[in-house]
Amino acid sequence: MEDQVNDPIATLLTTYNELNSASIETLYEEPSPLEFMRYVARNTPFVVRGAASGWKACQEWNAEYLKAALKDSEVNVAVTPYGNADAPTPLPDTDLTVFAKPHEELQPFPSFLTYLQQQSSLTVPLPPSHSEIRYAQTQDNNLPHEYALLASSVPPSIPFARIALSRLPDATNLWIGNSHSVTALHKDNYENIYVQVLGQKHFVLLPPVASPGVNERLLKGARYKRSDKGELELVLDEDGGEVPFAMWDPDVPEKHATKYSRLVRPIRVTLDPGDFLYLPAMWYHKVSQTGCADEGICVAINYWYDMEFSGPLYCLDTLVRSVDEKRKAEENKNDGVE
Amino acid sequence: MEDQVNDPIATLLTTYNELNSASIETLYEEPSPLEFMRYVARNTPFVVRGAASGWKACQEWNAEYLKAALKDSEVNVAVTPYGNADAPTPLPDTDLTVFAKPHEELQPFPSFLTYLQQQSSLTVPLPPSHSEIRYAQTQDNNLPHEYALLASSVPPSIPFARIALSRLPDATNLWIGNSHSVTALHKDNYENIYVQVLGQKHFVLLPPVASPGVNERLLKGARYKRSDKGELELVLDEDGGEVPFAMWDPDVPEKHATKYSRLVRPIRVTLDPGDFLYLPAMWYHKVSQTGCADEGICVAINYWYDMEFSGPLYCLDTLVRSVDEKRKAEENKNDGVE
Ligand SMILES: O=C(O)CCC(=O)C(=O)O
Ligand SMILES: O=C(O)CCC(=O)C(=O)O
Repeated sequence: MEDQVNDPIATLLTTYNELNSASIETLYEEPSPLEFMRYVARNTPFVVRGAASGWKACQEWNAEYLKAALKDSEVNVAVTPYGNADAPTPLPDTDLTVFAKPHEELQPFPSFLTYLQQQSSLTVPLPPSHSEIRYAQTQDNNLPHEYALLASSVPPSIPFARIALSRLPDATNLWIGNSHSVTALHKDNYENIYVQVLGQKHFVLLPPVASPGVNERLLKGARYKRSDKGELELVLDEDGGEVPFAMWDPDVPEKHATKYSRLVRPIRVTLDPGDFLYLPAMWYHKVSQTGCADEGICVAINYWYDMEFSGPLYCLDTLVRSVDEKRKAEENKNDGVE
Repeated sequence: MEDQVNDPIATLLTTYNELNSASIETLYEEPSPLEFMRYVARNTPFVVRGAASGWKACQEWNAEYLKAALKDSEVNVAVTPYGNADAPTPLPDTDLTVFAKPHEELQPFPSFLTYLQQQSSLTVPLPPSHSEIRYAQTQDNNLPHEYALLASSVPPSIPFARIALSRLPDATNLWIGNSHSVTALHKDNYENIYVQVLGQKHFVLLPPVASPGVNERLLKGARYKRSDKGELELVLDEDGGEVPFAMWDPDVPEKHATKYSRLVRPIRVTLDPGDFLYLPAMWYHKVSQTGCADEGICVAINYWYDMEFSGPLYCLDTLVRSVDEKRKAEENKNDGVE
């Protein structure tokens, strides 16, 4: 094993761990804009327990309410065989791992919700009638558009974040699923305020400096399509484009590990209804969910605010990546020579 | 020249330059604590023109006022032959460059000030009667102690910084000198609010990522001592300790350059009386000064607030340094082999 003195990335991860907490900071009241800005400056997550309990969404939403509100709506549903929308997935009959995008289709909202509820208590292997995993997760500012009829149940932005960052959210997204969907480890260039409404979300968080430990690979894109027989088939994208994606799963840490994965210290936090999570820009997150006991569905809303690209965070990420790229290139060269 | 694609530090400096302004941001009113915190988060300097004009210090201080206020005081004065307190300096009769600390002595304040004033209009070579350069620059929280009689002329802290950072200043320092003193390029682990009172200060600022361009070397310490004949002699410290110090001078960019110096973009700003500078933590600064026309002295006050070590800035600095150290070690090894 390489000496840490000569390994800048190992030194970085050790320094990071020494200077930062291994668990999430918990607040019981919303921070002021200034207090929030201090967390943004430190790029440090926190959870606020119960901060949204008074929201109309948290007070009134349940499956029945949602079905009534959207009784005539069709919504975009991500459909996959394993709850693996936007996840690295083996392409059948090849030795390729691809970035699997879901089949997307419009479904009447009430029957989508009933399907989630009925499936919720079922365990794998799922019966043929409920073998598809469905997740409303369009992430395209869906709340004021697709779900406009629900938008007045939540504030249009989070005041402490709007004031601190001096901007409106770039997107407000509604997420509706059940325990069969998992969102694979990835990161976004947004400051994210994530608010739980029904059920629970289980986050695993890794800081931006963890990138050399998550084993990002360039994956070809593929998308599930519904065959004539109604079955889901994963089809390689024709454009040949590739996306970098994390292969390491902090819940299966032996698999796909890099030499740095063991220096990465995941932070785990579960959100209950009414809880806020501040998920800082560029943090990796893997998200699983539990439907609420009575309703069998899991509902959340998040607010994405544009991040700041000047300042140290983005430069730090750039440097970590290029140092790791160079190291990998050199290791490959040396492997070739030996 | 090494390809930038394979040079993480060159990539970093180019990215930094693309994302950040090449000149200083100028405000004409103090920022709010929240606005200030946004600058802290971005680690970005700014100047506020005239923000301290109403301070008693800016309204009333002049040489006469100061001499009257401190007529019975003795103050610690840094004495050097070239205005080179805390600067890299050749050690006479050797080929060593050392970190030259000033001779420090107590001087009656009024005669110290008269000396500065008389010397102020003289040019090099200075006459024997004024050949020493004197600078009151103890940097040890001198305002509330050594200069306690002046402390009520300035606020005990800067409200926007105190509120934003949620702490009192760690030190408040008074600086009194003339145009013959220069403070060599260095950096401090503090958030710094620097306030000009009399005369002008000329800052050259480099961001923390510039470290591979400033050519830091480990220098042995030395201190000026007054000989029996009254002359200043530079004497090597006996403890053999070494301090890392920047050899590159952004005003003489060809000398002592590293391969990265040309990618470093200095920001220059001159402070006039009443101006504030926010000098963010870990920024390199070289400071020269001009005495005010009537009085021949240059007076400033600065407030140091402890910086935040969690968060991306300190990790970025750690990584930049260890990548550059490793590169230098490898280049030396290769040079040895060839
Ligand atoms: O809730 C989820 O499944 C994923 C959330 C997410 O990735 C996000 O808010 O950026
Ligand atoms: O004013 C000077 O000469 C130097 C100021 C300085 O280095 C500081 O405020 O940290």
